[in-house]
Amino acid sequence: MNVFESCLGRVKPVSPSFFNYAEKRLESQIRPARSLGFLEDVIKKLVAIQERSVLSVERKAVFVFAGDHGIVEEGVSLYPREVTAQMVYSFLSGRATINVLARTAGAQVKVIDIGVDHDFPPQDDLILRKVGYGTANITKGPAMEEGEVRRALEIGIEMATKAKREGIDLVATGDMGIGNTTAASAVISALTGCAVCEVTGRGTGIDEKTWRHKIGTIEKALDVNSSYLSDPIDVLQALGGFEIAGITGLIVGCAMERLPVLVDGLVSSAGALVALELHPSISDYLFFGHRSYERGQDAVLRKFNGRAILDLDMRLGEGSGACLAMSVLEAGVKVFNEVATFEEASVARRRGSEMPVALATRDLL
Amino acid sequence: MNVFESCLGRVKPVSPSFFNYAEKRLESQIRPARSLGFLEDVIKKLVAIQERSVLSVERKAVFVFAGDHGIVEEGVSLYPREVTAQMVYSFLSGRATINVLARTAGAQVKVIDIGVDHDFPPQDDLILRKVGYGTANITKGPAMEEGEVRRALEIGIEMATKAKREGIDLVATGDMGIGNTTAASAVISALTGCAVCEVTGRGTGIDEKTWRHKIGTIEKALDVNSSYLSDPIDVLQALGGFEIAGITGLIVGCAMERLPVLVDGLVSSAGALVALELHPSISDYLFFGHRSYERGQDAVLRKFNGRAILDLDMRLGEGSGACLAMSVLEAGVKVFNEVATFEEASVARRRGSEMPVALATRDLL
Repeated sequence: MNVFESCLGRVKPVSPSFFNYAEKRLESQIRPARSLGFLEDVIKKLVAIQERSVLSVERKAVFVFAGDHGIVEEGVSLYPREVTAQMVYSFLSGRATINVLARTAGAQVKVIDIGVDHDFPPQDDLILRKVGYGTANITKGPAMEEGEVRRALEIGIEMATKAKREGIDLVATGDMGIGNTTAASAVISALTGCAVCEVTGRGTGIDEKTWRHKIGTIEKALDVNSSYLSDPIDVLQALGGFEIAGITGLIVGCAMERLPVLVDGLVSSAGALVALELHPSISDYLFFGHRSYERGQDAVLRKFNGRAILDLDMRLGEGSGACLAMSVLEAGVKVFNEVATFEEASVARRRGSEMPVALATRDLL
Repeated sequence: MNVFESCLGRVKPVSPSFFNYAEKRLESQIRPARSLGFLEDVIKKLVAIQERSVLSVERKAVFVFAGDHGIVEEGVSLYPREVTAQMVYSFLSGRATINVLARTAGAQVKVIDIGVDHDFPPQDDLILRKVGYGTANITKGPAMEEGEVRRALEIGIEMATKAKREGIDLVATGDMGIGNTTAASAVISALTGCAVCEVTGRGTGIDEKTWRHKIGTIEKALDVNSSYLSDPIDVLQALGGFEIAGITGLIVGCAMERLPVLVDGLVSSAGALVALELHPSISDYLFFGHRSYERGQDAVLRKFNGRAILDLDMRLGEGSGACLAMSVLEAGVKVFNEVATFEEASVARRRGSEMPVALATRDLL
């Protein structure tokens, strides 16, 4: 058994008793029951992951995996392949959208070259873990060799254990890779059985004609790689990308380390779906940061029976939606930790409940 | 012409030229066009309000207006009337949900007693502007006297000018008042023409039977006050509440002062609707912080042709949804201010665009 399977074996479901504990505490706080809606579900899940009576998401990091895609030569993207490396440089400069959103949320940005078609000079802020110079063209065969997909998964695991060691409380997933919505849609179609046209969007903004071509390209890739589609890791190898595999590994590693993960949009969700197919308890550790404008993500949300924290029609990737959702999650954490209970505040509970109506006094202040 | 009408007359629409300016800047930043979806609409609107090339929402405040409601004697709410005052005390203690959410967002909480049925001792954090000890029972006649509704509107205006004077960049609306979803639904039904059952929800969590009774009570109130329903301020006087009128005044005052306002849920939206009916340019200055679980808010969103930033099934009030949305809005501000342009970062624009593909160099770093 290799490293990845051994980590997968260490993923355990969260204990339902912590949901009950969290629910009781939320209901004891001075607000009508369930009045924070879905935010309460988010809080309860986090309590079950952290198994703490005082939650913390103070230390946060977003892992942005960057890789290139052979499929780009089929003309499925609006941007040239070189943009992947250029965007990595922009992440390192601290002035891309993900940097700004991460700073706002108080999160570190960890950029990993897992498969960019460019040699980056070594530098402090870039984690060099190149598995290859981009994947192969999936209309002609599998995207990766078996050794490559394994290596990419292990890099993801490594990042999760590194996060745990550094005391990170909350991890977000991010991606950069021109052509990677094509790979993500292919993976999602293969694993959900949804028609390609249902799970394929406009990516960075292609027109109708290019969109139809993108669908045809994915259909061809599914056909060419049809012998790979029975096992989730084979699907990842045949249709995915280095960064998608890195994200799958990161998610499995975080679940193993009992770290909560905020999943970003389409590409991250494809990585999350592979992880879920490998172990049903993965979903215990995941939050979907946002609902992407990329329609393919909905198929993944349905598989997880999941609901995203934000729904803003974003479609940038980079981890942007996950980072934006961090502040909502952090606000939930503070509500759980800090809001007074009815008893502490001498506020009357609802009619018919056990506590007598007693007007609060200034003792409270 | 009285104070309120004079303020209303000073509300001016924002200039469309700032939308164009903002759009150009957003499209020059290193991301695919429109890839931040609705967040870009929020940013553009804020640019048009602030008329600045560097946005700021650093200084924030939520104004929580508290008032009681005569309708509570009809048994429409789950909580007793005393809870309004008790919750005001809990706001002052700093340990209610709104305090925690405001702290997380970096916002001050301003609590205004505009009509609570309790005499609060003077204290630093409480703004005493009591117009009355709760409204009258709206099934028996109008909620307020004409002088009272005018006074409440002017208090709202006063808070807006105070915010402007104190250098507040972003205002949020909040409410506290047992029974106030009944008043809000009545106002919304009267101003939108929607059937009462369409705009009436479960408030703090009443059962089916009490919900039906709440609907009947509102229908009776609309009938009893039918001679008041032709003018928005008359509707507010007949069916609203002191806190709803305070919110209407705050919103009009902020529009007059060119301050952006984040509107909270059902009760705040009722106040916003009255303001919109009085002046169409009000909508230029408003953001809806969240979509409430209270169904009546949807009718207001439709009137504004508006979309809420968050959609989490929250139904607490207090300004909670508006404060939670502040961090999303602030993240948008930082994106606008800080993300590099294609030119600055030497990132290739999309195929066919004017800039040549030139690989970024380390000069950027």
